[in-house]
Amino acid sequence: MPTLPPARIGDAFSDVDTPALLVDLDAFERNLARMAETARRLGVRLRPHAKTHKSPLIAHRQMALGAVGACCQKVSEAEVLVRGGVDDVLVSNEVVGRRKIERLAALGRQAKIGICIDNPAVLDDLAAATQRFGVMLDALVEIDVGGRRCGVAPGGDAVALARRIAATPGLRFAGLQAYHGSAQHFRTPAERREAIGAARAATAATVDALRAVGLACETIGGAGTGTFEIEGASGLWNELQPGSYIFMDADYAKNTGDDGGPFRTYEHALFVKVTVMSRPTAERAVVDAGHKALSNDSGFPTVVGLAGAAYHRPSDEHGVLDLSKATRVPGIGEQLLLIPGHCDPTINLYDWYVGVRGFGTADAYVEALWPIEGRGAVT
Amino acid sequence: MPTLPPARIGDAFSDVDTPALLVDLDAFERNLARMAETARRLGVRLRPHAKTHKSPLIAHRQMALGAVGACCQKVSEAEVLVRGGVDDVLVSNEVVGRRKIERLAALGRQAKIGICIDNPAVLDDLAAATQRFGVMLDALVEIDVGGRRCGVAPGGDAVALARRIAATPGLRFAGLQAYHGSAQHFRTPAERREAIGAARAATAATVDALRAVGLACETIGGAGTGTFEIEGASGLWNELQPGSYIFMDADYAKNTGDDGGPFRTYEHALFVKVTVMSRPTAERAVVDAGHKALSNDSGFPTVVGLAGAAYHRPSDEHGVLDLSKATRVPGIGEQLLLIPGHCDPTINLYDWYVGVRGFGTADAYVEALWPIEGRGAVT
Repeated sequence: MPTLPPARIGDAFSDVDTPALLVDLDAFERNLARMAETARRLGVRLRPHAKTHKSPLIAHRQMALGAVGACCQKVSEAEVLVRGGVDDVLVSNEVVGRRKIERLAALGRQAKIGICIDNPAVLDDLAAATQRFGVMLDALVEIDVGGRRCGVAPGGDAVALARRIAATPGLRFAGLQAYHGSAQHFRTPAERREAIGAARAATAATVDALRAVGLACETIGGAGTGTFEIEGASGLWNELQPGSYIFMDADYAKNTGDDGGPFRTYEHALFVKVTVMSRPTAERAVVDAGHKALSNDSGFPTVVGLAGAAYHRPSDEHGVLDLSKATRVPGIGEQLLLIPGHCDPTINLYDWYVGVRGFGTADAYVEALWPIEGRGAVT
Repeated sequence: MPTLPPARIGDAFSDVDTPALLVDLDAFERNLARMAETARRLGVRLRPHAKTHKSPLIAHRQMALGAVGACCQKVSEAEVLVRGGVDDVLVSNEVVGRRKIERLAALGRQAKIGICIDNPAVLDDLAAATQRFGVMLDALVEIDVGGRRCGVAPGGDAVALARRIAATPGLRFAGLQAYHGSAQHFRTPAERREAIGAARAATAATVDALRAVGLACETIGGAGTGTFEIEGASGLWNELQPGSYIFMDADYAKNTGDDGGPFRTYEHALFVKVTVMSRPTAERAVVDAGHKALSNDSGFPTVVGLAGAAYHRPSDEHGVLDLSKATRVPGIGEQLLLIPGHCDPTINLYDWYVGVRGFGTADAYVEALWPIEGRGAVT
């Protein structure tokens, strides 16, 4: 049973219980529109990443603005999306194991389904499952373009794998997945351009080598919120997969833009509202959100509206605010807003988005309660 | 809607989908029995922490072996426990805000409910809520015994707060909460003994000062899995609140015992089963569990049964295994077991415990699927 929502529709902002995951609906909608416009301007397809939001409803909002479909990382996420009516889903990740591959093939009866492959070891299971369920799946060869995570080496190894895929019944070779994960968080534009430049060279050489053996890349996919402008303008990638742009987070706020200032084309639209539950000294307040309410894997959250206060020393259910440099001392019961350090795994801790209209104004109210239907979908 | 369980009752161990949160039922049951026996031997009450397991079923198992009740950190966790039939629950934490306090008071109609207080700012809300719901709550004064998180200062400040509690309708002053959180993870027994020795002195002085004004401490509570032997043998604490002992984790495994070896009275009984989903080089495998399947806040998980392999560089849905020192190279599709870095927040990522009987044997099978009913209970 999921937890109960921490608010009711129509509640005043102050009446939302804490900790709660809040969406500034106005900023969120501006972010959706900005990325849709960017993809149109660059002349590339947009397939936003549902690993961030885990919500069919948000995927539909993105598709209504022009996105071609959604991508996700797990078969169970694809199941949630298809169950929610999303009809074009790419699992931008390797899928291994007979049962998982059967679940993926079964989804192919209900939607257009794509998958990434970086090793021929899975081809027998894929051939059997697609035959059993009577489906054809799109298959992208994932190449390692510098992230040193998954992916076959670009060039000859990728070509050999693509040829085997093209010869596998039930699979249609659809192109390359060329995503550089770590480059998203390189702090300066120069570092990001250098990384994506190298990725471009490796990807282009692989496309050429595939063409030489008669294999065309219908899709060259990749890019995240940190680099989509670079891939989008490259003339090579034709499908962008950013996720975090809809909400942003404190980690992305550490990237800088071309002007040296913060990387802020997209607005912070996701917040965790917390309450000061203890204030043992004038220099220390304790809020009701620790590791179970914030994923601190990529740094701590930023405190909004309390200059100089720093969140640190989280434990499971507590976060300590260092007030030694704060401009004022919050009282017991005061509510504060935090910008999560890392949006995706923080969202995965909650069952509900609390959508707020008029965020930041005295009249802010709860307009929407959206279930995070893919929360916990790890298989 | 919670995720579907990753197995069915009776499934062979190998057929459990991944990532999955597994309980070695034999080790778990030995851990439960050991702690119950320890509390009997020390002559203290045991109130295990449900923040770890978030399961009324496990709380009942602990109470069947002699525990007096459960404790938890959040009102929403108390709601889950009471809904599951647990009739004695202490929220070992501050509760702030009118709505939360009303929810807590409402539970007082169905179970014996206790609360911790470290500031008189909450007393008006508590008086109003207990009157409205017609209940009496037990109140412990939380004192800061060295953890520098919540808690009023020991001594005079604690006495002043206790007197105000004793004068508040609907509250019964029941004693002190004297928990030293950070000491649980001090690595050597000497460090832990020193910290709890200091906590003992501060607590004993506060007990004496309370007695001097006619306030008796029925309960002196605290202690976790790292230090319960020290508090339990102190002659002062009379209620122990350990949580992690039922499962243990890789962080507690870094504590040493009196013999200088690992701190291992309690057995690892919690594992995350993962699958190798990519193996781009002989020195790098990628498993299907990252930040959304493992809480890496207190260090990375340990890889079981693959000597020399080290989990590192997790991203949201991936973990990289460094195989440069591994004794063998696992294949695509191979399943591995990880001991989570930190049990509590890892459990909070899952909807299901998969209980395995005969864990580690060729005949291991799924005996139980237990819902983690308090998962996500953060309010």
